[in-house]
Amino acid sequence: MTQSDPQNPAQTQGYVPLEDQGDAARYFERVCDALEAENRGQLLADLQALHPADAADMLEQLSSDQFTHLVGFLGKDLPSDILIELRDEYREDAVELLSDSAVGAALEDLDSDDATTILEDVDEARRERILDELDPEDRAPLEQALDFDEETAGRLMQREFVAAPEFWTVGHTIDHARETGNDLPDQFFEVYIVDPSFKVKGAVSLPLLLRSPREARLDDIMSEVNVEIKTGMDQEEVAYLFQKYSLASAPVVDTAGRITGMITVDDMVDVIQEENTEDFLALSGVSSADGSDNVWETVRARAPWLGVNLITAFLVSGVISLFEAALDRIIALAILMPVVAALAGNAGSQALAVTVRAIAEREMHGAAARRAIWRELYTGLVNGFIFGIGVGAISWLWFRDVWLSGVIGAAIWLTFICGCLAGILIPLGLARMRADPAVASSVFVLTVTDVLSFFSFLGLATLILLN
Amino acid sequence: MTQSDPQNPAQTQGYVPLEDQGDAARYFERVCDALEAENRGQLLADLQALHPADAADMLEQLSSDQFTHLVGFLGKDLPSDILIELRDEYREDAVELLSDSAVGAALEDLDSDDATTILEDVDEARRERILDELDPEDRAPLEQALDFDEETAGRLMQREFVAAPEFWTVGHTIDHARETGNDLPDQFFEVYIVDPSFKVKGAVSLPLLLRSPREARLDDIMSEVNVEIKTGMDQEEVAYLFQKYSLASAPVVDTAGRITGMITVDDMVDVIQEENTEDFLALSGVSSADGSDNVWETVRARAPWLGVNLITAFLVSGVISLFEAALDRIIALAILMPVVAALAGNAGSQALAVTVRAIAEREMHGAAARRAIWRELYTGLVNGFIFGIGVGAISWLWFRDVWLSGVIGAAIWLTFICGCLAGILIPLGLARMRADPAVASSVFVLTVTDVLSFFSFLGLATLILLN
Repeated sequence: MTQSDPQNPAQTQGYVPLEDQGDAARYFERVCDALEAENRGQLLADLQALHPADAADMLEQLSSDQFTHLVGFLGKDLPSDILIELRDEYREDAVELLSDSAVGAALEDLDSDDATTILEDVDEARRERILDELDPEDRAPLEQALDFDEETAGRLMQREFVAAPEFWTVGHTIDHARETGNDLPDQFFEVYIVDPSFKVKGAVSLPLLLRSPREARLDDIMSEVNVEIKTGMDQEEVAYLFQKYSLASAPVVDTAGRITGMITVDDMVDVIQEENTEDFLALSGVSSADGSDNVWETVRARAPWLGVNLITAFLVSGVISLFEAALDRIIALAILMPVVAALAGNAGSQALAVTVRAIAEREMHGAAARRAIWRELYTGLVNGFIFGIGVGAISWLWFRDVWLSGVIGAAIWLTFICGCLAGILIPLGLARMRADPAVASSVFVLTVTDVLSFFSFLGLATLILLN
Repeated sequence: MTQSDPQNPAQTQGYVPLEDQGDAARYFERVCDALEAENRGQLLADLQALHPADAADMLEQLSSDQFTHLVGFLGKDLPSDILIELRDEYREDAVELLSDSAVGAALEDLDSDDATTILEDVDEARRERILDELDPEDRAPLEQALDFDEETAGRLMQREFVAAPEFWTVGHTIDHARETGNDLPDQFFEVYIVDPSFKVKGAVSLPLLLRSPREARLDDIMSEVNVEIKTGMDQEEVAYLFQKYSLASAPVVDTAGRITGMITVDDMVDVIQEENTEDFLALSGVSSADGSDNVWETVRARAPWLGVNLITAFLVSGVISLFEAALDRIIALAILMPVVAALAGNAGSQALAVTVRAIAEREMHGAAARRAIWRELYTGLVNGFIFGIGVGAISWLWFRDVWLSGVIGAAIWLTFICGCLAGILIPLGLARMRADPAVASSVFVLTVTDVLSFFSFLGLATLILLN
């Protein structure tokens, strides 16, 4: 996923731009026609004339049958730069359909980080077969990458980077780059300065290299690398460091501190989006970030939290059943009780969303967390007071019962305070226990607000209205 | 927010790393003590020894009183690179506390995009006063930047970029960079190749410049720029292009197509996070992305959707009141009805979260949207069937009433199907009407599932159990 590829002639000529939806639709027709006619030359020419990201978009719009047809028809001619741009589920399907040797050919084409992404989708046995077909020098880095845990810096990094010894001069470095030519990575932002044991001493950004005199020594102009990214570091942590320090790239070091790879910010953008999607869906109880079109996978991604919700919902019903006597005598209680639960649930969810996001952005350390807890308490007090009066007033207009209005208003106030506190304390507690606050918080917070809503409203009603 | 700054001696010596929380806490103590003793030299030395992002973290941990004290005490000595790293609400407070001339001094220090960020927080009258104090050459680019709408490419871009005419050679370009020296931007990834009217003809990435022979002409090695970012383009659109095409930087052109600035990926990471935060909070009905510690701002950010929810909750109560007769005769209905609403609401929220995220990631065009609608329909059918049976079974164990179990099971099935469809059709409809699907969808979807839950459960019960 680099931007310039001198081996690819389409690059220097520029890609066909797709100006608008109409443009894209017409182009899509051409691709479909070429596929229908099984015109390999035309199909490949059309796809390769587009930016790989646009070509991948085209393929994702094909029907499942067309997509299967296209992958089977093109086989190893399917350009690897389009394959890697496909969304996860499409790329997995394509790799499934391709022959071992076609996948192997794609791996040889790609940077090591992209090749690793492809192999991650493949089951163990097939992975072995594909790797066996590769040249040893292509195979070794991939096997090493797969030895790292998923979602770590070791998996994400590319093994292609540019390093130079401390005593080199700017002139020597540029001359060396010219000699090495196309064997350099297509995209890099810094030259890493290493000692003889390959420990990173510093970095020289390319703009600095460019503007420094030829005779300047690298170790005189280099700046220190502020972050130490080990191969085992979690990708979320890596993404956080990139964001915090506005990094364009960073070296990755092994446990002995030797440079083994490099991570660039464009890969981090993908990780950031992946983590955001996970948090976003987790808040609504979707356990997999996969927006798959497959119904069974979708059911499996959603059923677990529905199952938990099934249990908590009956727990809430159990609370309501404690107040059968009150419900039996005052029908208005049954009519109004969902209002309390809905509003308190909403107030709790708001506090929860703000807290989960702040934790994800690492804004919830010591003093900040304490201030936020007070803020939620006061917000619950104020909003609970406002909406308690509002709900009480509407209830009075409807049922003309001052006592009933007082009971529901008080219940709202109480549950708003508790809801806001639950919305911050539950995710903070989960985070402290090293659980992901985005995943389970929502169901806990809503259970707390539901139980409290029905308990306080029906309980107060029993105490005050039935006596 | 660039990584290397040759004018800053602390950079080349490297920053003090904060290895862990304990380290940071000890350092924080030092800063507090220096502030307490009003030891300006010590305080500045301590803050500047840290990476500006770490120093900003320190300041955010101070109490409000300490923070006010520090900003007032340091005044124009407050390092501008720390000021710009502060989170929005802290930066706004600091700018409020600083004198006009101190803010002006910071603006002169910063890149134009960062300076614009600071001026955005300041009210019109003060902005004029501050700008008037600046040198004309510092003032003009800022005034031009502020002429662009907020959240557009024109506001985001930095006016510092590197461009060269087509006929220059690689050697000439590097020589020119050496002569220009520190007047070049600290960080850039490409040289833009322009014609005499400053129209962008192409770009040469720095790695390519480095490895090409001195005598190569820029227009022979340049690649086309695939994206055209106009000054008026919305920042969300810009961020999408950066993600899609894995860009490190891109030129920004005016309406006449002339290059006027450059956007780099590290700024886009901030935009991506901002947009993610907005979507994340909007889904839970928080209307401002501001995790402010101010209670009144928090109340104002949350009250609007609670107000809407107040109305929809009474609408739902109105539906329940239609079935007073049934509730009056069968108390189990009042006890069980929240189960239907909770589960259906959950199913709808899941579909909604997946859809809103897919729209944000632009995965919901034509064919994909149609496939997703079918997927939701089938998911509702399957999960509704599974949980309908589950809820029916538990209800039977509790109340030993086959008809009641049948009624609640059927209601669950029906509301799951409608909930999943509402979860996809409502955000798609809002997106089609060019409204933000993240903002209003949640309250609509939950109202639909609530109304349907109570209507179907109590309605079926009236039809079947009361006759």
